[in-house]
Amino acid sequence: MVLLGSTGSIGVNTLIIAERYNIAIEALVAGNNIDLLNEQIKKHQPKVVAIANESDRSKVDHPHVLCGTQGILELIEMSHSDTVVNALVGYTGLAPTLKATGLGKRVALANKESLVVAGEFIDMSLITPIDSEHFGLWYLMNERPVSKLYITASGGAFRDWELDKMKDASFSDALKHPNWSMGNKITIDSATMTNKLFELLEAKWLFNTTKVDALIEKKSIIHALAEFTDGSTTAHFAGVDMKLPIAFALRGEVEEPILPPTDLLSIGALEFLPIEAERYPIWNIKEHILEHAHLGVVVNAANEEAIEAFQKDQCSFFGMSTMVLDAYKQFEDVKASNIEEIIQIDQEVRAYVKQR
Amino acid sequence: MVLLGSTGSIGVNTLIIAERYNIAIEALVAGNNIDLLNEQIKKHQPKVVAIANESDRSKVDHPHVLCGTQGILELIEMSHSDTVVNALVGYTGLAPTLKATGLGKRVALANKESLVVAGEFIDMSLITPIDSEHFGLWYLMNERPVSKLYITASGGAFRDWELDKMKDASFSDALKHPNWSMGNKITIDSATMTNKLFELLEAKWLFNTTKVDALIEKKSIIHALAEFTDGSTTAHFAGVDMKLPIAFALRGEVEEPILPPTDLLSIGALEFLPIEAERYPIWNIKEHILEHAHLGVVVNAANEEAIEAFQKDQCSFFGMSTMVLDAYKQFEDVKASNIEEIIQIDQEVRAYVKQR
Repeated sequence: MVLLGSTGSIGVNTLIIAERYNIAIEALVAGNNIDLLNEQIKKHQPKVVAIANESDRSKVDHPHVLCGTQGILELIEMSHSDTVVNALVGYTGLAPTLKATGLGKRVALANKESLVVAGEFIDMSLITPIDSEHFGLWYLMNERPVSKLYITASGGAFRDWELDKMKDASFSDALKHPNWSMGNKITIDSATMTNKLFELLEAKWLFNTTKVDALIEKKSIIHALAEFTDGSTTAHFAGVDMKLPIAFALRGEVEEPILPPTDLLSIGALEFLPIEAERYPIWNIKEHILEHAHLGVVVNAANEEAIEAFQKDQCSFFGMSTMVLDAYKQFEDVKASNIEEIIQIDQEVRAYVKQR
Repeated sequence: MVLLGSTGSIGVNTLIIAERYNIAIEALVAGNNIDLLNEQIKKHQPKVVAIANESDRSKVDHPHVLCGTQGILELIEMSHSDTVVNALVGYTGLAPTLKATGLGKRVALANKESLVVAGEFIDMSLITPIDSEHFGLWYLMNERPVSKLYITASGGAFRDWELDKMKDASFSDALKHPNWSMGNKITIDSATMTNKLFELLEAKWLFNTTKVDALIEKKSIIHALAEFTDGSTTAHFAGVDMKLPIAFALRGEVEEPILPPTDLLSIGALEFLPIEAERYPIWNIKEHILEHAHLGVVVNAANEEAIEAFQKDQCSFFGMSTMVLDAYKQFEDVKASNIEEIIQIDQEVRAYVKQR
């Protein structure tokens, strides 16, 4: 298989699962962590690798190194693997998803922005999500008719803060996720609840329904719930370890132990809480965007720019949501009819947000 | 279909579901509630009815009335229906289950004593349980390999009592179930946790595994959990209303709304607690009886006699468990090789308990 984003936490876990099931690694793609990439090359012997920056090329212990976005697309094009694992972060992940699906390859997708931005233009039959929430939903559904799908949110870094204090929250405050350690972008998206909004959009594309919602479950033990027409609701409990969805994404059904089971007697009380728009202003557009999912491109572009501004201390924590909601209002009538128009809208939104 | 136990809560709910799906009622069997039986006769027009006592015959508004255990068996024998719903209470339910399965009829079984006493001699392919817990397990399993099955218990009337106070608990105290209203026998079995022990034995026969256990979930919103080999655990949430398992028992899969869905935001905190042998002494034999499930006949006979003694104020609440555990020890080497021997053991155990 081809692994995009091999040095992040999804990438590292994917290699553990690949080793366990003897899946050959044809190609590795990484960003700036060349030391770890070199270890991975030594162990997994890929035929080709790609990295983000030309300037790192000489540090990579491999005879065949491609560089930049174009290098990644070329690498996918030349690969013989049926499966591409896309664990790239942000908008950057979209072009590789389109390239791989365009070639008829199966994509195990951890890059949620691909679906958020361009779900309409992606062949969903080729996509398997790598993600506790969507994996959980898939695990629960079993072809019974559902009336509603729920995913859960931890609530992010500020779930227990006083609202007043959140106004002055810094970038480093927002990186303190209560339950686990992830990359910066997704941790900020957790604090603003944008990550969960994106997952609802993903669910909409993956399961072809707008009857999706999210709830806070602070312990992150229950990841998904399916409410069925008959009146039953089922819930998926699992440890917070991406090896489980990765194994299913790579293998279909898995009948071997991947994680230790949840110890039901030691988890204490579990509770579902509403996601309040006062704390998470992005939640104001949840209903609208689920009915207008093509606007994901707008929210994503504005959000990526807003995070950059927040990181550079150019706006406050709530300033990010203000920027995203403003852009959403400004661009609510756009509708791309192809990928080129998606790319153009993305650029226009970014330019608009930057200018403000 | 044939409905045994039509005037109890399972029977009443079964008739609601039968009406909804236009299932014809060939025969009704009831105990002492002749007024309700007469209403049911008027509405459902059964071809034949049976009642417990000959003395009530003249009160029944039907030309064809059979009486007593023999009457029930005769009624099953003469029926043309493929399905028998057995909602009789206690040991009395066993002979009708054997009669119906012997004739190749499908049995929708709410009489848990049938499996507890004689699971070994019943053709499990003809049995569908009417029961939130086993329905929940079946709903969750979906042919994936399981490592453990859990059912939940409310904890019964004394779950929050001080242990010392429980020693003096009366029969009427034990009938105060915290979550719902059921018949006397099952409510007492709830307070002693014998009901849950019986359900574990049922699960053993139904799903052919001894990897079953029970947990307390006080709100009775989660009824069952399945732990899978891969590390996932799934849970079944539903309102406490028997119409859901009844509909599935009668129809196979059901794709229409039977119950309103659980409102996840209003249920508050859910917690799993251990079942402690100090409060529920019957739990001391859980592991042993799961490995020696043929001893269910002993526990059931001793338990029915113990409940009668407790009701007559001949023993204390904990005295019931003492009687059952003593009989279990006394008869631990018995093993029936056919139904006749089951009946004989049942009689011997009852005689032994009465004598003590």
